[in-house]
Amino acid sequence: MKTKNNQTGVKIIPLGGLEQIGMNITCFEYQDSIIIVDCGLAFPTDDMLGIDLVVPDITYLKENIQKIKGFIITHGHEDHIGALPYVLREIQVPIYATKLTMGIIEHKLKEHNLVKATKRKVIKHGQSINLGCFRIEFIKTNHSIADATALAIYTPAGIIVHTGDFKIDYTPVFGERIDLQRFAELGKKGVLALMADSTNAERPGFTQSERVVGKAFDHIFNEHRDSRIIVATFASNVDRVQQIINTAYKYGRKVIIEGRSMVNIITIAQELGYIQIPDNTLIDIESMKNYTPEKIVLITTGSQGETMAALSRMAASVHRKVSINPGDTVIFSSNPIPGNEKAVSNVINELYRKGADVIFQDTHVSGHACQEEIKLIYALTQPKFAIPVHGEYRHLKAHAGLAKTMGVNKENIIIMKTGDILELSENEAKVTGHVQAGGIMVDGLGIGDVGNIVLRDRQLLSQNGLIIVVMTLDRYTNQILSGPDIVSRGFVYVRESEDLMEEARRVVSSALDACLSKRCSDWGKIKNVVRESLGDFIWKQTKRNPMILPIIMEVDA
Amino acid sequence: MKTKNNQTGVKIIPLGGLEQIGMNITCFEYQDSIIIVDCGLAFPTDDMLGIDLVVPDITYLKENIQKIKGFIITHGHEDHIGALPYVLREIQVPIYATKLTMGIIEHKLKEHNLVKATKRKVIKHGQSINLGCFRIEFIKTNHSIADATALAIYTPAGIIVHTGDFKIDYTPVFGERIDLQRFAELGKKGVLALMADSTNAERPGFTQSERVVGKAFDHIFNEHRDSRIIVATFASNVDRVQQIINTAYKYGRKVIIEGRSMVNIITIAQELGYIQIPDNTLIDIESMKNYTPEKIVLITTGSQGETMAALSRMAASVHRKVSINPGDTVIFSSNPIPGNEKAVSNVINELYRKGADVIFQDTHVSGHACQEEIKLIYALTQPKFAIPVHGEYRHLKAHAGLAKTMGVNKENIIIMKTGDILELSENEAKVTGHVQAGGIMVDGLGIGDVGNIVLRDRQLLSQNGLIIVVMTLDRYTNQILSGPDIVSRGFVYVRESEDLMEEARRVVSSALDACLSKRCSDWGKIKNVVRESLGDFIWKQTKRNPMILPIIMEVDA
Repeated sequence: MKTKNNQTGVKIIPLGGLEQIGMNITCFEYQDSIIIVDCGLAFPTDDMLGIDLVVPDITYLKENIQKIKGFIITHGHEDHIGALPYVLREIQVPIYATKLTMGIIEHKLKEHNLVKATKRKVIKHGQSINLGCFRIEFIKTNHSIADATALAIYTPAGIIVHTGDFKIDYTPVFGERIDLQRFAELGKKGVLALMADSTNAERPGFTQSERVVGKAFDHIFNEHRDSRIIVATFASNVDRVQQIINTAYKYGRKVIIEGRSMVNIITIAQELGYIQIPDNTLIDIESMKNYTPEKIVLITTGSQGETMAALSRMAASVHRKVSINPGDTVIFSSNPIPGNEKAVSNVINELYRKGADVIFQDTHVSGHACQEEIKLIYALTQPKFAIPVHGEYRHLKAHAGLAKTMGVNKENIIIMKTGDILELSENEAKVTGHVQAGGIMVDGLGIGDVGNIVLRDRQLLSQNGLIIVVMTLDRYTNQILSGPDIVSRGFVYVRESEDLMEEARRVVSSALDACLSKRCSDWGKIKNVVRESLGDFIWKQTKRNPMILPIIMEVDA
Repeated sequence: MKTKNNQTGVKIIPLGGLEQIGMNITCFEYQDSIIIVDCGLAFPTDDMLGIDLVVPDITYLKENIQKIKGFIITHGHEDHIGALPYVLREIQVPIYATKLTMGIIEHKLKEHNLVKATKRKVIKHGQSINLGCFRIEFIKTNHSIADATALAIYTPAGIIVHTGDFKIDYTPVFGERIDLQRFAELGKKGVLALMADSTNAERPGFTQSERVVGKAFDHIFNEHRDSRIIVATFASNVDRVQQIINTAYKYGRKVIIEGRSMVNIITIAQELGYIQIPDNTLIDIESMKNYTPEKIVLITTGSQGETMAALSRMAASVHRKVSINPGDTVIFSSNPIPGNEKAVSNVINELYRKGADVIFQDTHVSGHACQEEIKLIYALTQPKFAIPVHGEYRHLKAHAGLAKTMGVNKENIIIMKTGDILELSENEAKVTGHVQAGGIMVDGLGIGDVGNIVLRDRQLLSQNGLIIVVMTLDRYTNQILSGPDIVSRGFVYVRESEDLMEEARRVVSSALDACLSKRCSDWGKIKNVVRESLGDFIWKQTKRNPMILPIIMEVDA
């Protein structure tokens, strides 16, 4: 397919979301039309000290603002919607999403005073919208949040199926099962490319139905009739919360929802009819004291061991309204997300120490498709091209292996990199270029003002602390009028190391005297003398490398 | 049993090793005799910024030095021997251990110039030693390092069995299986207390024999005949290395050992006869170039994703002698230790990016007993008291549950805390006191000079950086002669935030003027004015809380 402008196919440009989990945002571009699927944030990795979150670099979107028709959002998780408030401040673009997803987005936009300025349209599963030269059809899927959608994107080059995050749940707790028939129909028509969720591509078998968790809760509630039950789970897993509430109701318990994000999402889900709570079941946390422990279920955030979440605060005895008591049963209805294992374990240890019984098995199922489910989607859609999405590199790689076993030609399986421009035509997929893309770090109000130099300094400071050497020189004679004084932070506990610090001062002082007596007046040189003499001395004495920061002031004496 | 000094039983005092993995060191004390089982270090937790390792506080040992008869070491892992060089510098005490364990200890002591000063005695399994009023019998066990031992400690109060770290391997790769008959005999005689390994107490079933890993290697080597094979595993798992070497030999490959700790331990094991390497199998890393890739096996450290370990350096392309090439097969013969999952995953992603095939399943078994093994030891020894050791609190708790199901009276199951004094007599176990104990942080050469204040500063600096405000005042008039100057590190990238920093300087400057014009001369007050004015301004502008460090110099103008 040759077209004007020499564009041979549709362009797919991921601005994030590959190579690491999070920050999903992908452009689809054809001539004068761009649509963007998802707009997520990423949480900082361990080396991003002090960073609150990471949002995508949207330079490419700003440069092509006149082409952009809208955001299509697949579901309401932070790694798919979290960057919207940051991005919408820079580009005003309409949003298309299903009802619950839009409800969660609207709550977020309200917090950022952006709700009025943003055009929004709720789309139902089965419905299509036309945006520029694209038609986008919403297809029902299952995931760990209700109302998730896959997309069939009709492009001039052919149909691209994007699964979003999905699993196959034949017996979902709320709503319909995934619309496998529609995937099959599209496959019959001919699917050019499949972009499918890779998260669980390393895991054999089939992810279990959310409904099995309900049975596990029933079993546990039955076994623990005499104790208060606290369940920690993901705030956004509305179906999970529904099942906990159902079980609580069956066993005659009142339910308290605790943790800000949990309260927010459950409130939205309730308003929009995604969760049914029997009358007189939900009670206020203040009313807890009116009930005996065995009549209470607390549903809370903190299942990932997050320091500031409600459960962690309860475990650490710093929650203002809930203390853990001997006899409490705490259920982790979650698996630790990779990287959180230690934090979760710390909270479990704390809970045991407070005398609670902790149950951390059998009450969680994944929201993502395992190998057999991924294969099923390939069997139904039979795409010509496979473009694994959503996962670390190892997951994309495992997904590529699955696509191959499902008959996709090896050269038609493409693992993209963030910023790649993939041009996809009927017969060919080719990376033809690269745009500026990747993560921008947010620290407090600052977006992008913390870069690698600042992070390197934070890293240095965190490992060895710093020593400041300050002195005042005579502007004309360069004679030392005051100092050198030495101040340290994060290096050693000074009161117990007075001798070391005093000797350090003498070392710097005599190095400075030697330098200044040779009429050295270049501040750069003077600072180097300080850094080298002190650095050597400290290394020899302590085998440590604190940051050394010489500061010179000058005065007309 | 009443005795003189009113001591009613033997005292058991863990100076570390409980509540968190690592730093195992336990005193057994009766009247004028103390023996110490193990002397391990711990690795720093995430909040111990810049700390290299953690060693036990041995104040109690120093205070009772005249009573101490010796260290009994159960096996050669760092969490059981690693603190010896630090502790032996302060107290000279003989060491008793099996041959391989002693070999590893001697290597460590040599590095610290302590080998000559330290009395050492190698003990065989089945042998006993008398130390003060204790007799200690060494009992063969299995573990992920050869020559591990359990101890039967004959005390005036009764027999205490300490398993050390153990598993039950009916078909060990090297040497004998665990001496279950002896455990049974002791049980028949009557065991007062069992102190058993809790690491896997949450895991049902039975840990598999090390030998199954050999079969897995055979399968993988057979399937990957055409590629270079790199195996990452624990340096100290000599049996694992033996099996890799056997498989390499069978498939006609040469073996290279890479990574300092791996080379050290394999050298010791070879010298002492704990590993058999066929002639002409081991080659130097320099000779690798003389062989085609399919004739090579590299055995390396780095299976835990440790940044500085050989495999991580290969993956990051900073290893001086080995590059990862497309077609290489990399085997992780290990499970991530909790907390290392993310680091391991990062290395796996890097290896895939370099084109390697990565295998991270089926080539590892644990070195610790699962539930059925722990139960078996209870069935054989039938102790009156159960004192779970070695594990996080959750593991000790799970172990306590197992002991209960095995018929130990609930009140006879004791979960100790670090520093507790447990007095154990024929009829009673009671915590009767507490000694100073816990971890001391080592940073470079400094042992204990980094405390909570320094760590809190490092934490602050790592999250938000710092801003230094420096000024020179006239000693008599308090007039500002120079400054205030502002210097920041780890806060914002200054070149892109010049306006912010200039405005910050003006804010501080005018706050200072206001303060000094009121004849304020107290440096504490002046510094507070700086901290408050600048802190408020920065928070309003950035929603960040950098450390603010005012420095005042004074000059005779």
